[in-house]
Amino acid sequence: MRQVNFTSRALLSALLYCVVLSTVKAQVRADPGIPDIPGYRTIKGDFHMHTVFSDGKVWPTTRVEEAWREGLDVIAITDHIEYRPFIKEGDHNIAYDIAKSTADRLGIMLIKGSEITRREMPPGHLNAIFLEDANALEKDDWRDALRAARDQGAFIFWNHPGWSRQQKDTTLWWDEHTWMMENNLMHGIEVVSGLDHAYYPEAHTWAKEKGLTMMGTTDIHNPIGMDYNFALGEKRAMTLIFAKEFTENGLKEALFAGRTIAYYQDNFYGNQEYLEALFKASLQIQEVRKSGNRFSVKVYNPTSIPIKILKAPGNEDKDFFRWLTLSPRATDGFTIVAPEGSNDDFVEVKWIIENYKSGPGESIAVTMRFDAKQ
Amino acid sequence: MRQVNFTSRALLSALLYCVVLSTVKAQVRADPGIPDIPGYRTIKGDFHMHTVFSDGKVWPTTRVEEAWREGLDVIAITDHIEYRPFIKEGDHNIAYDIAKSTADRLGIMLIKGSEITRREMPPGHLNAIFLEDANALEKDDWRDALRAARDQGAFIFWNHPGWSRQQKDTTLWWDEHTWMMENNLMHGIEVVSGLDHAYYPEAHTWAKEKGLTMMGTTDIHNPIGMDYNFALGEKRAMTLIFAKEFTENGLKEALFAGRTIAYYQDNFYGNQEYLEALFKASLQIQEVRKSGNRFSVKVYNPTSIPIKILKAPGNEDKDFFRWLTLSPRATDGFTIVAPEGSNDDFVEVKWIIENYKSGPGESIAVTMRFDAKQ
Amino acid sequence: MRQVNFTSRALLSALLYCVVLSTVKAQVRADPGIPDIPGYRTIKGDFHMHTVFSDGKVWPTTRVEEAWREGLDVIAITDHIEYRPFIKEGDHNIAYDIAKSTADRLGIMLIKGSEITRREMPPGHLNAIFLEDANALEKDDWRDALRAARDQGAFIFWNHPGWSRQQKDTTLWWDEHTWMMENNLMHGIEVVSGLDHAYYPEAHTWAKEKGLTMMGTTDIHNPIGMDYNFALGEKRAMTLIFAKEFTENGLKEALFAGRTIAYYQDNFYGNQEYLEALFKASLQIQEVRKSGNRFSVKVYNPTSIPIKILKAPGNEDKDFFRWLTLSPRATDGFTIVAPEGSNDDFVEVKWIIENYKSGPGESIAVTMRFDAKQ
Amino acid sequence: MRQVNFTSRALLSALLYCVVLSTVKAQVRADPGIPDIPGYRTIKGDFHMHTVFSDGKVWPTTRVEEAWREGLDVIAITDHIEYRPFIKEGDHNIAYDIAKSTADRLGIMLIKGSEITRREMPPGHLNAIFLEDANALEKDDWRDALRAARDQGAFIFWNHPGWSRQQKDTTLWWDEHTWMMENNLMHGIEVVSGLDHAYYPEAHTWAKEKGLTMMGTTDIHNPIGMDYNFALGEKRAMTLIFAKEFTENGLKEALFAGRTIAYYQDNFYGNQEYLEALFKASLQIQEVRKSGNRFSVKVYNPTSIPIKILKAPGNEDKDFFRWLTLSPRATDGFTIVAPEGSNDDFVEVKWIIENYKSGPGESIAVTMRFDAKQ
Repeated sequence: MRQVNFTSRALLSALLYCVVLSTVKAQVRADPGIPDIPGYRTIKGDFHMHTVFSDGKVWPTTRVEEAWREGLDVIAITDHIEYRPFIKEGDHNIAYDIAKSTADRLGIMLIKGSEITRREMPPGHLNAIFLEDANALEKDDWRDALRAARDQGAFIFWNHPGWSRQQKDTTLWWDEHTWMMENNLMHGIEVVSGLDHAYYPEAHTWAKEKGLTMMGTTDIHNPIGMDYNFALGEKRAMTLIFAKEFTENGLKEALFAGRTIAYYQDNFYGNQEYLEALFKASLQIQEVRKSGNRFSVKVYNPTSIPIKILKAPGNEDKDFFRWLTLSPRATDGFTIVAPEGSNDDFVEVKWIIENYKSGPGESIAVTMRFDAKQ
Repeated sequence: MRQVNFTSRALLSALLYCVVLSTVKAQVRADPGIPDIPGYRTIKGDFHMHTVFSDGKVWPTTRVEEAWREGLDVIAITDHIEYRPFIKEGDHNIAYDIAKSTADRLGIMLIKGSEITRREMPPGHLNAIFLEDANALEKDDWRDALRAARDQGAFIFWNHPGWSRQQKDTTLWWDEHTWMMENNLMHGIEVVSGLDHAYYPEAHTWAKEKGLTMMGTTDIHNPIGMDYNFALGEKRAMTLIFAKEFTENGLKEALFAGRTIAYYQDNFYGNQEYLEALFKASLQIQEVRKSGNRFSVKVYNPTSIPIKILKAPGNEDKDFFRWLTLSPRATDGFTIVAPEGSNDDFVEVKWIIENYKSGPGESIAVTMRFDAKQ
Repeated sequence: MRQVNFTSRALLSALLYCVVLSTVKAQVRADPGIPDIPGYRTIKGDFHMHTVFSDGKVWPTTRVEEAWREGLDVIAITDHIEYRPFIKEGDHNIAYDIAKSTADRLGIMLIKGSEITRREMPPGHLNAIFLEDANALEKDDWRDALRAARDQGAFIFWNHPGWSRQQKDTTLWWDEHTWMMENNLMHGIEVVSGLDHAYYPEAHTWAKEKGLTMMGTTDIHNPIGMDYNFALGEKRAMTLIFAKEFTENGLKEALFAGRTIAYYQDNFYGNQEYLEALFKASLQIQEVRKSGNRFSVKVYNPTSIPIKILKAPGNEDKDFFRWLTLSPRATDGFTIVAPEGSNDDFVEVKWIIENYKSGPGESIAVTMRFDAKQ
Repeated sequence: MRQVNFTSRALLSALLYCVVLSTVKAQVRADPGIPDIPGYRTIKGDFHMHTVFSDGKVWPTTRVEEAWREGLDVIAITDHIEYRPFIKEGDHNIAYDIAKSTADRLGIMLIKGSEITRREMPPGHLNAIFLEDANALEKDDWRDALRAARDQGAFIFWNHPGWSRQQKDTTLWWDEHTWMMENNLMHGIEVVSGLDHAYYPEAHTWAKEKGLTMMGTTDIHNPIGMDYNFALGEKRAMTLIFAKEFTENGLKEALFAGRTIAYYQDNFYGNQEYLEALFKASLQIQEVRKSGNRFSVKVYNPTSIPIKILKAPGNEDKDFFRWLTLSPRATDGFTIVAPEGSNDDFVEVKWIIENYKSGPGESIAVTMRFDAKQ
């Protein structure tokens, strides 16, 4: 690369009349740093969002660009089949078709989906994803719409089950939902919905009891930056999927198998198994030093989400912190004092991980073992 | 207001199953704090923006909501007449019609406008605002389109005159622009355009020489939060209009009369008269105390934009700062030492206000007089 | 104010060699917007902080400047009497004496205080404020130190009662604390401590049961901006005091009378009475319109803290939201549908205010009445 | 790692009484991403700062912690020898001695330094770094103080040469500075000083003409977060040193050899050679594709600082942007249209890099060659 100096006169005149060159907003992809877990790839998805082709406020490509910026791997645009106040377009595949090339360019996996929409509960609203042709879902009877989705191999989930417009005071399970499950017409449920930035404790319980896949979605209608205060650290709701492979098939298998966590802000909602695996993958032990009966530990949190640790019952013979928050992308240190006279080269403690929620009012309990370096 | 305590049991069960209640993003209107100037109301406007009805990515109502949040008073949606890749709709008034009720609800003045669009320069792109019927501008010959706008009483301005796709290396004035001015077909020019977050020094000069109204616009296509980094303090481009009354007529009269400043980030671009009036309205003298020949001054900057002051030549007999930035919405203090033996109860100094730009490479000069309280 | 134009040459040369004028950080006082309550002024205080005269990292005047920026009204610097690893200075009043003139200049009320420090529990650490001479507290026996403080009329409170270094697994109440209360040697307790950014549920319960004043403090040692992430919206811990008058005497009377709330981040900790009064003062009803049996309500939250509302049991005959977060400094609207056929011009609803905590796992319950405008 | 589930009762009681676990401020080191240049390691340093041992407001260890957080590699604490209003301590090495162990623990290189302080110009203030014993600099005659520093092998530089308290209207060079240079008593000059967040154009010119090393320093007295608005993206002033090895000797050799750039906010100040090397190391060409005479280029900016590019004169036969800002840590793309009929597999363009300043009102010019992949 050769370099030439221009005369200072030319430079000067160029600069005197210099334009304003501002810091244009970086087109940067934020990485939440959520790790894979043993045996599975962790896929970050949002399977509920709207565009001008139903009652959303943005063009389909914008949903892909937002997803890319916020660190998602996969999205489904799920415009209402039955409610299209803005652009009434014959083909229900249109948002997918418009967004596809942008998704390909940015490396976002785009899944075809639709929202089957009934004003009243039951059945309320359900999303069907992995569709081949969304038009087949335009049916008078919602049961027919669900069957049409199932016949395309769709994964179907119940949206915002506690939405006050459909469940006035209490989040109820209806006979129709039992019927759907019996007929292979409902596979998942939103445990977290961005519709009212809410967590539904009943949905969390049902998911565990009935074997429904736990979903976290934004249900975003506005430009995402209007509803989430990213500048103040708010995080977008999403579903973490633990897939055998990073493909659409891998994703689908994992969703049907129920290997997910619903995530929003500082909290992970799931069952003990995947929460514990994710927690342990998210806690990197950097150093354990032993001096007498004192273990000095350094750990690193590689994610953009804090890890909130409580001392659990059952540690009476050891002395360490009663609570500790591991800051995002930071190294923290602490000391564990083992019982006097203990000669082990390791120490075990019991923790509750407060923001890894295995049920309403319940957090995961883990036993951690720290081995001092030899 | 009477108050009742519930049983603690009910409370407890309510809370145990408590939903996540996040800090939903505040729907807050940001006020840049730009003051009126003597004799005029200061109206903050953006007269260049797009929706899905041309090549923008959002629904028309979103433009109104963005404007409300960012503290604007008036906007014009100006979709291209000739370039509508997304939604091809017969009626060119449609974005206005859709957005009107939202504008009324939020108290945003909505002006009907369109962008007359020719790929090549001349004439490039021009905006016409205060239209009655945008459909009349759909003409093969751009001259006819401009005449149709003029015949409706429109205010017409030249968009992004230095855009590299139309002005390869140099921002040129063409004979056609002379012809437009001679035929009352061009009244303003964008001195600042958000299209490439740029200031056009040539446009600034032409505006002053030829009597064109200076405009600052965003030309926004994306959701505004995707292109402006508000979290890092970036400010939206806008036009400040100094109107005799806060009405559409008042606005129109002021635009035709050229009483504007183009604003973007930390910089105001205009002519000396309005810049100086705005600067003086933006500097609130809170206190002047005299002790011997020392004047202690406290000033407040009520705006969200810093004021950058340089000592000008001609202050040799006084001693004070050589440069000073008055922080946004903050009080700053400084001392001016008058010549020894001076008995006056006031002191005069000469300043250059670096970010109030009266031309390319030129900032306004002001003389400030500080009167000590008796 | 006369104004003079300089020659363009002078201007040009001034600008060509122009300095960088950056946006210097605004010395702005943040106002949390917390209102007074009926009958009382609300004073915002922090009564636990350190400087280089014990084990803090900053000069005393910096504590005052930080307090001013963060919107506090009153502070006490409370360096350890017994632990001064940095600057060993004979006079324990020195930090107060150094900071006083800065406090006077900025309008911050500065209270003289000290931390009586014993490594082990009991008694652990206690703060004494409203001292006349801190030197009198330098005693071998902590009982003598507390007596010396009491004899100066000090208000004394127990610091970080759940700190793991002093309370290994469980936050215990010791006989010594009973003795202190019996002897008028302990009047308050930290319910919130910035020492480990923690809330102590046991302290909250004891305060209510035993009549101790609830305190929220930072116990800050570092520059405050190193420990609080203000950019991400973290809020400083503080004590809200409800005083009959905004004076040191008014403050002292209120502290001894127990009229306080401990505040940190999004949460207020207190008892039902003051929490409810503060909540009601913080919810401004802007508009109630009735149409048939529907009441449309607009409310404004004047504070910088969200208000998190849950529908309580006992609203079965009405239809409205199940949860709602009122964003800081924003207007929100909602609809309440009264029973059909209801002819009243008002409607009453029962809410739980989730972030106004009246005890561990307990939030305040309120009945709200909305009167439609005639 | 074995894992045990606790009974839900224990968990529940733990959580019911759960403490507040906030997001404690991350102790994270920010990496500005400034690359090495060919042949040299790039060391990021700040060699001018104060503690309570002169007129600064913080304890020496805090300066090290701040430096670590802000991504610096090396600092010198340079308390005034002659002005110690806070802590009058006999030994001028004390701040270094106190901070050393923290610096070692965090991996910050700590250089011993002092500020030789005379109220009036000449000589004003000078920093001496790489001292062995700072006490030797306590001399009545500033010439003796400088000689004592030189005799220890110190690198000496002139501080804030344009500070208005010492240079009333104009930044003047005095005979004394000539004398210092002739006697090997002055080796560098502050081109950027955080004292008033300023750039000194005269110092930039003198550095180039007279062979002084260009320095950028903060001269920080407050906690750094009080003076820099990091939340709004303000960057700390620093000196970039191009060293043959990352050691104290390597640093010293580079400073005496003048291989530095002064950096602050978005701007680099230096001479053409190092600025160009740094720019070219900061622009990563990710992809060049040729189609006909069109070259599509993708570049990545690995730094946290934007790169502001202007088209220079001399590109008349090519068509590309007229200005372009490369956002921090982001990939940008652009197209260069070579002359029709051109068969080359590469294209050359001439750019001005607006924020790489080689002198007052002067930016570096570079020729860039983009080779299409075969």
